Order: sequence, then structure tokens, then C-alpha cells
Amino acid sequence: MKTLVIEGEFGGETSTAGKIENYPGVKSIDGYDLMKIMREQVEALGGHIQEGLVQKIEKEKGGKCFIVSTKDESFQAKTVILAIGSRRRHLGLPKEKELTGRGVHYCWTCDGPLFTGRVVAMVGGGDSSVKGVNFLAEYAKKIYLIVRGKEVHAEPINYEYMQGLGDKVEVLLEHEVKELVGVKKLEKIILSSPSHEPDELVLDGLFIEIGFDPDKTFAEQLGLELDEKGYMKVDNAMKTKIPGIFAAGDATTHFGSFKQDITAAAMGAVAATSAYEYHQAVP
Amino acid sequence: MKTLVIEGEFGGETSTAGKIENYPGVKSIDGYDLMKIMREQVEALGGHIQEGLVQKIEKEKGGKCFIVSTKDESFQAKTVILAIGSRRRHLGLPKEKELTGRGVHYCWTCDGPLFTGRVVAMVGGGDSSVKGVNFLAEYAKKIYLIVRGKEVHAEPINYEYMQGLGDKVEVLLEHEVKELVGVKKLEKIILSSPSHEPDELVLDGLFIEIGFDPDKTFAEQLGLELDEKGYMKVDNAMKTKIPGIFAAGDATTHFGSFKQDITAAAMGAVAATSAYEYHQAVP
Repeated sequence: MKTLVIEGEFGGETSTAGKIENYPGVKSIDGYDLMKIMREQVEALGGHIQEGLVQKIEKEKGGKCFIVSTKDESFQAKTVILAIGSRRRHLGLPKEKELTGRGVHYCWTCDGPLFTGRVVAMVGGGDSSVKGVNFLAEYAKKIYLIVRGKEVHAEPINYEYMQGLGDKVEVLLEHEVKELVGVKKLEKIILSSPSHEPDELVLDGLFIEIGFDPDKTFAEQLGLELDEKGYMKVDNAMKTKIPGIFAAGDATTHFGSFKQDITAAAMGAVAATSAYEYHQAVP
Repeated sequence: MKTLVIEGEFGGETSTAGKIENYPGVKSIDGYDLMKIMREQVEALGGHIQEGLVQKIEKEKGGKCFIVSTKDESFQAKTVILAIGSRRRHLGLPKEKELTGRGVHYCWTCDGPLFTGRVVAMVGGGDSSVKGVNFLAEYAKKIYLIVRGKEVHAEPINYEYMQGLGDKVEVLLEHEVKELVGVKKLEKIILSSPSHEPDELVLDGLFIEIGFDPDKTFAEQLGLELDEKGYMKVDNAMKTKIPGIFAAGDATTHFGSFKQDITAAAMGAVAATSAYEYHQAVP
């Protein structure tokens, strides 16, 4: 097959993930380097990669193909794999981007073990944040849970587990991170709350778990099925409801809330094979 | 978690797979070397690997654990991940067992080089058989590809490579091996086809690459649900119907007939996370 990868930015989320040790077959690698290898691998096998931000995907009128358009160009393709990921919600604070991977982290399953014996905080009041605290408790010596609202909304089982961790965990309700302080790495954060003076917290790591937003643009253009959170529904062959359109990775519902590089890579392989089979079946 | 991997043989099928170029993140590697890296990675992260062939898995009486037994030892575990793969299929012909290793072979990467300058045949019409032919072509002087069906189902890149080998390779479509002839070693095979009289083929070696069967032993011991081909049914979190028992890889139904290292690795990651969540939820 003649294949083109159009990427908005090199390597996506993974390229800024910092050290990765949970990708089977690659012992320990920086996310940027892992994506560089994948890029070289794609090119060595004859795939083409092009920078560009796709704005529109539509069915070709009276034809079998889809028209995929960036700002400047249009491409015709019989199959399209949507591997568009989802964007982690950020705090939107100055320095957040520069300190990402340097004390500011979004994926606790990926980066939690790097904070063995350290002091960390988790931002977020949902079930994922509490699960994250429980996970971090196996590594970190102290964890603050910073919650904007008046209570934590977690599954009881996870909440109880967190309570059982005792002094190791401190929950700061009605607190918001106002400032990230650090030059080459995060040193501390400034917190505000309605009842206190702004306060600072010296930390080795800050985990931000305030949700994801999948991009619904293409799903809406094509009429794909989404779940209630906006993730694309696929079957176990990564097919969507539209023949010729496949999806893979974090933007899909496939493995539920479990979203890692290894699962995205597997879904990509399955989607590519399904696309190939579609080409064979629809000449 | 305290984790133990019990392996019957190092690296399973992958360790004899030859060159692997379709595992994202690892450009080109021998299967044995890929498994060596995975082993080192597991050990670096604190997992323990032990040789042994598990014979029995049963629920602990009156307890929350499972008892996993090899011939000599028993282990107690709260969760078990069945990553048992599937086994190569045999032709089921008389003498097949006696002649195995004496002209009848299943692993072309292992035994192919023994046939340098010889005449061999490969049985099977799938991608693995074609990859096998391409591999054998580096050693053998002539290779017959014996296919029961009307066509070969291989990845185009592999099929084209085979076509490029010219006269060295002869494809016999709609042919079946009916008999293996030889006393201490394979001498020839008898072939049948709908359009011809039974025919014989004098060979030095016959490679059999006709698919896999999953091992049902543990599924039957535990009462797990299987599909009609004997693969274990799992949900998208790799849970089986038995709480505490998870499954991953080729032995599951998860990605249908698509079975690659990358999908097995992803399922392993999901199963491990589900096992972790089970440990949290069931103290």
C-alpha cells in the first residue's frame, strides 16, 4: 500500500513524556527518542511522513475515496486511519510546557516510579486522580492531592484505599495551583484557597490529572459514533461504522481508560491490517 | 506487586521467529534478541522469571488465592495472567512424530540452515509459510510451497519477495501431503491434488507451517469460556469470567486472528494493570 502519515506535531504526547520504561522491548528510553525510532522505522519500510494539520476529511463525491485536506493541500485516500490521540487537559499556567517532563507530569503510570522516595502532588478531584494517588503511594514518600472543589469524586473502593494510606496522603480541598516555580525543573508550586493566604508547597513532582479531551472534529465531519466522553467507537478490528475509516490509539474507546504507547502501537498495527484487508476486498 | 513469570521455554514462539521488523519501536531485530531484551526489562523492573512448565492452576480452598503448580513446586497467587500462547499444528499423518527432526520440521528459522544446498518443501498457504520460503531460499537450492487452497494468503511484501526468487521456488496450489515416506529419515512425500494423480516428491526436508492451536488445559481446569477454536474469551480489560484470572496474547480471542508480538505486548500491559486494580479492589 502507498501510505502517508500526516502529523500535526512530531511524536505527539509521547515525544514529551520524558523517560519511558513501560514499553515492552525497549528498556528505558526518552519518549522523543522512541518516536524518532518509530519514524525511522516507518520510513525504512516505505511509509511517508509529512508535517501538516488536517482540517477536513470528507467522502469523495461519487467516488470510493476520502479527501483529506490540510490548509494547503488535499490528499485522496481509499482508507483513513484516525490516530489523532486526545489532549490532556492542562492547567494553563505559565511554565507548564517548559517544565513538562521536568517535574510536571501527566501520566502517573508512566512517570510515577521515577519519584520513588520523593514528595509529589496530584492535581484533580476525580477517580483517576485518586487512583493515581494510590499508585504513587507505592513509590513516593508523601503525596498531596490538590482538589479544586469541596469534595473528591472517586469510586468508593479507590477512595477507601487512599484513606487507608494514612499520613502519607494529604488531601487539600478547595485548593488551586496558581503558579509553577522552577527553572530547569519544578521546585515548588504556589497554591491558593478561599480560606487561606496563598501558600507554597515544595515538590519533586506534580501530576496533573484533570481529564482528556479527544478531538471530535473528524468524527463530526464523517458522522462517526462517539461515546459519551467523545471517544470514537471501534470494534476489535479497529473499524468504525464508516467503511474505509479506521481509528487507533487514545482517541478510541477500545481499551477503555487504559491508554499507553504499547496499546496505541498495537491498535495501529490492527488498524493498518484492517485497512489492508479493506483494500483487498474493495478493489 | 510481587510478580513471578513461569516460562516453559525461553521467549516462546517469538524467540524462533527470525528477523522481526514489524514491532513498532524496534527497527529490525532477531526474535531471540527481542525476547532477551524483554527478559532483561522485566528483571530490571523487579519481576522474577523462572523456568518451569505449569501443570495445574486451581482455586485455593477457602481462600482468595490460586495455586499454580509445576511438576516440582507450587505457588500461591492472588491473580494469574494466562499468557500461554498457542501451539503449532501438525499434519496428523502417520510417521510424522518419528520423522520430526529427521526431515520433518516445524521451525524453519531453527532448522532451515541444516538444508543448505538441499531440496525442501514448505506446507501452508499463509504469510508465515511464505516468510519461511523466503528464509529457506537463503540455504536450500529448491523449495516447493505446498498449499491446500486455491491461493496463497501472504502479506504483499513477502509474496513479492518470494516471486522475485524465480525458479528456485515452485508453488503447488490445491495440493495436500497425504503420506510421509522414510525409515530413519524423510525420503519423500506423497501429494494429492484434485486435478492430478497422486504424485511423489523426493525431498530432504519438509517444513510444516499450518497454524496454531491454543492449549485448553488451564481453561478447562478453571472453567474459563472459550470460543469455537479454543481461544480464551476476555473483555477489553483482559478479564476472564473468573475474578482474579486474566489472559493476554495469542491464546485469547481479543484481536481475532490478528496475532503479533505488538498486540500480545499490549494485552500483557492491559492484563497487568487489570490485575493490579483487582489487588486494590480485593484486599
